[in-house]
Amino acid sequence: MIIEDVRNILSANDRIAAANRERFMRWGSYVVNMMSAPGAGKTTILERTIERLNGRCRLAVIEGDVRGSYDRDRLRSVADIPVVQINTEVAYGGECHLDALMIANAIGGVELPVTDLVFIENVGNLVCPAEFDVGEDSKVMVASVTEGEDKPLKYPLMYSVSDLLLLNKMDIAAAVGFDRELFLRNCHSVNPALLVIEVSARSGEGIPDWLAWLDGKSAR
Amino acid sequence: MIIEDVRNILSANDRIAAANRERFMRWGSYVVNMMSAPGAGKTTILERTIERLNGRCRLAVIEGDVRGSYDRDRLRSVADIPVVQINTEVAYGGECHLDALMIANAIGGVELPVTDLVFIENVGNLVCPAEFDVGEDSKVMVASVTEGEDKPLKYPLMYSVSDLLLLNKMDIAAAVGFDRELFLRNCHSVNPALLVIEVSARSGEGIPDWLAWLDGKSAR
Repeated sequence: MIIEDVRNILSANDRIAAANRERFMRWGSYVVNMMSAPGAGKTTILERTIERLNGRCRLAVIEGDVRGSYDRDRLRSVADIPVVQINTEVAYGGECHLDALMIANAIGGVELPVTDLVFIENVGNLVCPAEFDVGEDSKVMVASVTEGEDKPLKYPLMYSVSDLLLLNKMDIAAAVGFDRELFLRNCHSVNPALLVIEVSARSGEGIPDWLAWLDGKSAR
Repeated sequence: MIIEDVRNILSANDRIAAANRERFMRWGSYVVNMMSAPGAGKTTILERTIERLNGRCRLAVIEGDVRGSYDRDRLRSVADIPVVQINTEVAYGGECHLDALMIANAIGGVELPVTDLVFIENVGNLVCPAEFDVGEDSKVMVASVTEGEDKPLKYPLMYSVSDLLLLNKMDIAAAVGFDRELFLRNCHSVNPALLVIEVSARSGEGIPDWLAWLDGKSAR
C-alpha cells in the first residue's frame, strides 16, 4: 500500500513536471536542475557561473533548502538576478528534495518571458532529488573529490539520471588522496554515458568547460 | 492529508522504535545511530573504532545503504564481527534513511545477548535520518570540514537531535580554509548542548576522545 502511494505521488509529480516543461519551452527558458550531496559545492559553482554569465544572458535561480536563505543571499550578492527561495520546512513538511509542485509554485516568482536560463539548486541529498522530475531540461550533479570513490555505486540512481557530472574541488584532489581512475570507472559502471567535467569552483579550473557545455545546451 | 499520513507513519515508527529499545535494554546492548552526509567519513571512523575496540567488547554493526554492501565488506575486513546489511532499494522502496522497522528486521541477524555495542550506520543523508527514532541510545553525527560552515543552519534538525558531533577530516582543515569558530558558532546556535569532538579518521587524531566518550556511555 505504501508502494502504491509512492507510485501515485510520482505519477502526480510527472503530470506537474510535464506542465512545468511545457511552460519553460513556451518561453524558451533552458532549465538546469543542480543536485549533489550537502557541501559538494553547488552554490559556489553557481556563484562562479553567475559572475561569468550575467549580462551575457538573462538568469534566474530557484533555491531549494530545508530551512534558511543563505544560498539565495550569496547568489544575490554576486548579481542582481531573481532568486526564488523554496523552504521545504515551511510549506512542504521538511521534504529532503524538490518536486514538480514546488517548482510550479516557485515559477510565479520568475519572469520566464525574459529569462534565458534557470538554475534550480536542489536540496543537498544524493538520494531522493534523483527520483523527481521537475520539468528541467538537464540534470547536472556535483560530486566533490572529498566524498570518496565509492559513491556512484552507493547512490546509483543519482549518477544514472544525471546528464553531466561536475567533479568539484579538484584543487585538493591530491591532498585527500583522490583516486580519479577508480572514481570514473565507478561512474561509468552505473552510467556509461555520463559526461564528467573536472572543476574547482575555488580556483576556477574547468569552469570555462562547464560554461561551454551550458552554452551548447541552452543555445539549441 | 499528506501531513496526516506523515504523522501516522512517524507514530507507527515510534511504537516500533520503543520495542527495539526495550529489546536492546533487555540484553544490555548499547546502540549508537551514526548519521552524516554522504562521504563525511562514517565508515572510516567505524573502521578505526572497530580496530581499537574489537576484543575489548563485543561489537556488531547494522549497515544502511540504498544499494550494495561495500561498507559491510570494508568493516568485515577489519574484524570478524557481525555486520548486517540493509539495502533500502531491495525491500524498502529506495528510502533515503533507516527507520525502526528496518532495524527491527535487521536485529534478527545480531545476537544481542552476546553483544555489548551495536553501531547503526545510517544512509548518508543530512535530512530524513534525523526524523526517525530507531530505538538507539545515542545519535552521533559526523560532519567533515569540507562540507562548509553553513550546514548546521541549513540542516538544523540533524544538528538538533544529535548527542555528539564528530567533526572529521581535521587533517585537511587548513587546506580547505575551514573556519572552525564560525562552524562551532553555527552548531551551537541550533543546538547549544551539542558536544563536538574533532577527529581525523585518516590520521587517528581525536579517535581516543571518541572512544572515551563511547566508553563512558556504554559502561553505564
